Amino acid sequence: MRIITKSFPYIFAYLLLSFAISFQTFANSGYDLWLQYKLIENEEVRNNYKVLIDDINLSGDSPTMSIIRKELSKGLGGLLGESPTFSDSDANEASLIIGTPANAPFIAGLNLALEEMGEEGYLIQRHDAGGVQHLIIAANTDIGLLYGTFHLLRILQTNESFENLEISSSPKIQRRILNHWDNLDRTVERGYSGFSIWNWHRLPNYIDQQYIDYARANASIGINGTVLTNVNANALVLTEEYIEKVAAMADAFRPYGLKIYLTARFSAPIEIGGLETADPLNEEVREWWKAKTDEIYEKIPDFGGFLVKADSEGQPGPHNYKRTQAEGANMLAEAVAPHEGIIMWRAFVYSEETPDDRAKQAYNEFVPLDGKFNDNVIVQVKNGAIDFQPREPFHPMFGAMPNSPLMMEFQLTQEYLGHDTHLAYLSPMYKEVLDTDTYAQGEGSTVAKVVDGSLDGHPISAIAGVANIGSDRNWTGHHFAQSNWYAYGRLAWNHELNSEEIADEWLKMTFSTEDAFVETASELMLQSHETIVNYMTPLGLHHIMAWSHHYGPGPWIKDKHRDDWTSVYYHQAGEDGIGFDRTAEGSDALGQYHTPIEDKWGDIDQIPEKYLLWFHHVNWDHPMESGNTLWEELVHRYYDGAEAVGHMRKEWDKLEAYVDEERFDHIQQFLKIQEKEAKWWRNACVLYFQQHADRPLPEGLEKPDKSLEYYMSMDPKFVPGI
Amino acid sequence: MRIITKSFPYIFAYLLLSFAISFQTFANSGYDLWLQYKLIENEEVRNNYKVLIDDINLSGDSPTMSIIRKELSKGLGGLLGESPTFSDSDANEASLIIGTPANAPFIAGLNLALEEMGEEGYLIQRHDAGGVQHLIIAANTDIGLLYGTFHLLRILQTNESFENLEISSSPKIQRRILNHWDNLDRTVERGYSGFSIWNWHRLPNYIDQQYIDYARANASIGINGTVLTNVNANALVLTEEYIEKVAAMADAFRPYGLKIYLTARFSAPIEIGGLETADPLNEEVREWWKAKTDEIYEKIPDFGGFLVKADSEGQPGPHNYKRTQAEGANMLAEAVAPHEGIIMWRAFVYSEETPDDRAKQAYNEFVPLDGKFNDNVIVQVKNGAIDFQPREPFHPMFGAMPNSPLMMEFQLTQEYLGHDTHLAYLSPMYKEVLDTDTYAQGEGSTVAKVVDGSLDGHPISAIAGVANIGSDRNWTGHHFAQSNWYAYGRLAWNHELNSEEIADEWLKMTFSTEDAFVETASELMLQSHETIVNYMTPLGLHHIMAWSHHYGPGPWIKDKHRDDWTSVYYHQAGEDGIGFDRTAEGSDALGQYHTPIEDKWGDIDQIPEKYLLWFHHVNWDHPMESGNTLWEELVHRYYDGAEAVGHMRKEWDKLEAYVDEERFDHIQQFLKIQEKEAKWWRNACVLYFQQHADRPLPEGLEKPDKSLEYYMSMDPKFVPGI
Repeated sequence: MRIITKSFPYIFAYLLLSFAISFQTFANSGYDLWLQYKLIENEEVRNNYKVLIDDINLSGDSPTMSIIRKELSKGLGGLLGESPTFSDSDANEASLIIGTPANAPFIAGLNLALEEMGEEGYLIQRHDAGGVQHLIIAANTDIGLLYGTFHLLRILQTNESFENLEISSSPKIQRRILNHWDNLDRTVERGYSGFSIWNWHRLPNYIDQQYIDYARANASIGINGTVLTNVNANALVLTEEYIEKVAAMADAFRPYGLKIYLTARFSAPIEIGGLETADPLNEEVREWWKAKTDEIYEKIPDFGGFLVKADSEGQPGPHNYKRTQAEGANMLAEAVAPHEGIIMWRAFVYSEETPDDRAKQAYNEFVPLDGKFNDNVIVQVKNGAIDFQPREPFHPMFGAMPNSPLMMEFQLTQEYLGHDTHLAYLSPMYKEVLDTDTYAQGEGSTVAKVVDGSLDGHPISAIAGVANIGSDRNWTGHHFAQSNWYAYGRLAWNHELNSEEIADEWLKMTFSTEDAFVETASELMLQSHETIVNYMTPLGLHHIMAWSHHYGPGPWIKDKHRDDWTSVYYHQAGEDGIGFDRTAEGSDALGQYHTPIEDKWGDIDQIPEKYLLWFHHVNWDHPMESGNTLWEELVHRYYDGAEAVGHMRKEWDKLEAYVDEERFDHIQQFLKIQEKEAKWWRNACVLYFQQHADRPLPEGLEKPDKSLEYYMSMDPKFVPGI
Repeated sequence: MRIITKSFPYIFAYLLLSFAISFQTFANSGYDLWLQYKLIENEEVRNNYKVLIDDINLSGDSPTMSIIRKELSKGLGGLLGESPTFSDSDANEASLIIGTPANAPFIAGLNLALEEMGEEGYLIQRHDAGGVQHLIIAANTDIGLLYGTFHLLRILQTNESFENLEISSSPKIQRRILNHWDNLDRTVERGYSGFSIWNWHRLPNYIDQQYIDYARANASIGINGTVLTNVNANALVLTEEYIEKVAAMADAFRPYGLKIYLTARFSAPIEIGGLETADPLNEEVREWWKAKTDEIYEKIPDFGGFLVKADSEGQPGPHNYKRTQAEGANMLAEAVAPHEGIIMWRAFVYSEETPDDRAKQAYNEFVPLDGKFNDNVIVQVKNGAIDFQPREPFHPMFGAMPNSPLMMEFQLTQEYLGHDTHLAYLSPMYKEVLDTDTYAQGEGSTVAKVVDGSLDGHPISAIAGVANIGSDRNWTGHHFAQSNWYAYGRLAWNHELNSEEIADEWLKMTFSTEDAFVETASELMLQSHETIVNYMTPLGLHHIMAWSHHYGPGPWIKDKHRDDWTSVYYHQAGEDGIGFDRTAEGSDALGQYHTPIEDKWGDIDQIPEKYLLWFHHVNWDHPMESGNTLWEELVHRYYDGAEAVGHMRKEWDKLEAYVDEERFDHIQQFLKIQEKEAKWWRNACVLYFQQHADRPLPEGLEKPDKSLEYYMSMDPKFVPGI
């Protein structure tokens, strides 16, 4: 190297670039998620931003305002290669002004239309004050400003333009929550990315940096609540010792606008309260819950409330005392009501005795209770009536309980979607459900409108996503699984976003803004869900995975102590055909949907083929849209799915130049595993169903290289997720 | 910022510095361990190094040579601010030449004394070739070169001088091994830093970057072997499915000189082999082990061998068939012998029926077998005769079996040393044992000489450290616990190093080379072990921790199904005094030591006070060196220990300027926890022993603020470490 004289900023940028490249080329664990803040490589783009954000005026000194300051230093320092200056004294001099009317006179003086923005919304605008150009972020609260700041940074991260900037954003759903199925021993039920990031043993005295980083990541996408504990609950978390631990976390999360909720074990009054009953109508029990709730709010004044799984899969509940779900929920609702807490009461209730189609049971139990829940109870309903299958038609409870607020429960963790190693971008799956019309109040009554409360004018609204977060260094196991955390947060804020734009944002923020990269990687993401459906459960098949751990195919599962946990119960494959008859001739689950749907989906020729075998038992020779018979179509779907994974893998290989070595290799290895496992699914299912169909494979398809017996004998040990 | 014209290197350095500071000031998870490779801030020092290492000649293209190249790029890039150039074609032009005589003609031409360096040793020298100065790293193998490279980088990391450089280094112990007590479900027995980093489920198809980083870290300190699985073993790891997984890891570790060993469950022939017995003299059993071993070596040609815990704490072993430990070990030794494998047979054997002082049992069982083990068996002996207590006198087996190689087993994980949150630098503890004279062959027969094989001229030698590594983002839970991994590796290579220089190296490489920092932090480390001994088990007390999870004090533990798992068995506190009488009047465990020790330690007035209550039952009023009575001295030790932690915490607070925010806060919070828990230990133990001593606290000491009953009723849940 020789002496060079060039303008400082030029060299600065050049050097930062080399430095960043030399380090990032090798090692990137993915821990920084979509907040990579890599230097914007295009100098012109960078300079355009710099002019608009070279000096910042930021009012207020709350912990949240400190976070905003730190985030801007980090974000702009990374993206633009230089940290911004903060001239807090004089807003007139600043190029970027951030404040609420309460703490920033300059903002107050603008008389912005902030009333309708609520407690979390924000405005980002350009403002001309006597010839001086300002960029402003305004909100009613500091949290609103934090959300606005992340939005601003996102604009830079995705290299969007500031021209004609006029952003007004507030969330469509009030409570945007992650559900952690984390146990106190740090195992995670259906968790495939290591173990729980909550180290209960070290709490309350040690606040891990990762808790802060978790809160920050959630704030960056608008998630404002988290249920720390598994729905299969342990009452211990409600003891004094654990409440202190929870309170320490709440203190750490608060400046990020993240509220804590806990799961309440219905039998806690017995287990930790020393009572002899947990009967919701028993006065002692009611008093116990009130006292316990007061104790929690004493330590955590903004505690969000409880999530309850009752009378389901072995969990205790009001059924034990011959009480209704409403009586159970209302008891808890009364306890939290004085503190403005809510109860999220899960509708995932079905009987161990399997008296009726499992798909119908939650509806049958809850719909008659419509209107009987207290105002601060919200019923948490899974997207479909069975259990987070690769594809499910929307749950018929949406649109069937106009007098009760219902919240959506999505699963981010890939319990039925290939666990840790399968690339599944789930926004299209979430959107498919949210955008479906329930016809509850005529056309346009989408599931989304039920959930955001607008259809029936409910004052509370919420959405939950079962987290895919664990102790893996990249949080989510698969790097692409980070996109589901991201997409969930973005959709919870605004369900009108589409999957393409979310994928686009996430890819740019996480990996690279290069068009060639984004185009290919985005296509790969957008096709991924359909691909998995094809190699696992095409045409409306469901619940045919392996026993217990749900890893791999298991269409042969039968003769267990619960019929509704077997595969044969769901696919009903036989000589005559395949599929679960849920029409009026069958279980009549279709009768739970509003008429236009019941009629259309009840007609074997009108129902979308993706739901066919969910609702109909269909002859193997039934002609499909493609001209194939059902048998041929089924087999082709399996083969197409597996082949598509090979295609994904090859497409990824082309992107090596755009991604650091560590993450590129990681994803490459996972795609190889996925390809292998897609073929495992394909072969096992095709061979199994062929037994029943008694028909040859369509011509031109390579035969499975192993026998059905081989696949049936596979017995993987220590599958993660307990 | 304005345009500045300065020489490029100056600006370069300045900018890198700012960049590094701005990023490292906040976030440093500690994942990079002692390989931080931070820019050397002193420009003069930096330039001195640059002159000597600006151009590198590196011969050979093995995977290990590629690793050397990458490490130099990363290391020098970080330390000097610019990556080196590699001019591989012409050694005469290079300032640094790295090679073996076999692959580098230049090195071959120097006729260096490499014969005595063995397969792992290396030379680092300066060489004048006709006026041209070269620095050379030479070794007989690529692995030797890798070790030499890490040594060279360490010189830079610790800012040592290159003047008069003449390094010749080879390991004193052949097999330097980590023992992972990791289960296949990823729990870690006595692991306090999260869960196992081995993700068995994703193997063999996914090699996590962390496996590579693990191998690299080990290579950097000379560790050349790892036992992947818990000594409380699961036979499943010996099945075909798991052998494939192990083989994939072996492939990843091989270029780093790291060999894999496994634990062998003695009953595996029954559990996975379908045999009806595991009798080591049964021909079928012997054949099964041979076939199994052949199968392993087929996949892993350099497999190291087996570690076995037999007939101990519920593990099956030769006792089940009335065979000796030698018969058990030799059966396995025969199986691995054709492949040059070894068997590490643990001496940690003691009876469930407690027929004799537990401290004596391993000696009694093994010493009579001296000379009966096959040549490729090495007996693995814990440093002390009980179980990794905060302080133990050396195990009497060292020096008692001249005809058998013995290896040392140290514990890095802090089972009895405060678990994850206590700062305990263990090099002084390791050194105390290694440097003790056994007098086996007269004065100078130190434990270290037994272990390195030099005392009795054994052809094999080994050392094991029970790993403290887990899924925590910094590997070891406590940042300072990284120093034990480091110190263990350094001592395994060269047990003549002293604890001060190891602490010094580690601090400089891990945090900062500033004198003010190193001085204070080093003192803190060097006092830490003695401090813990004081607040937990002063004056030779041992095994008085809480039941089962061993978290916190439990001197009151009694009436369990095994006496030798209770505390009262060990401390024997009563009206008359305290301590376990192991003299000739007592259990005579002292009789297992050679005469000079037996005599000295058997004399209550000559025994070092640190071992007093280990070997003597002593009256409460016994006068101590300090002039205190035993009771007063005991209490003072507890109080001194707790107070010293307060001092450590305050000292750490002074170091804020030298450490990034994340690690500084982490350690600060842990020291607060340690201070709290040191008082917990102090109060609980003092109150408990006071019951027996029936004497007041010495004057001037603050009284415990809680009652003994309070401490006895504490019942922490879900303590890590299973």
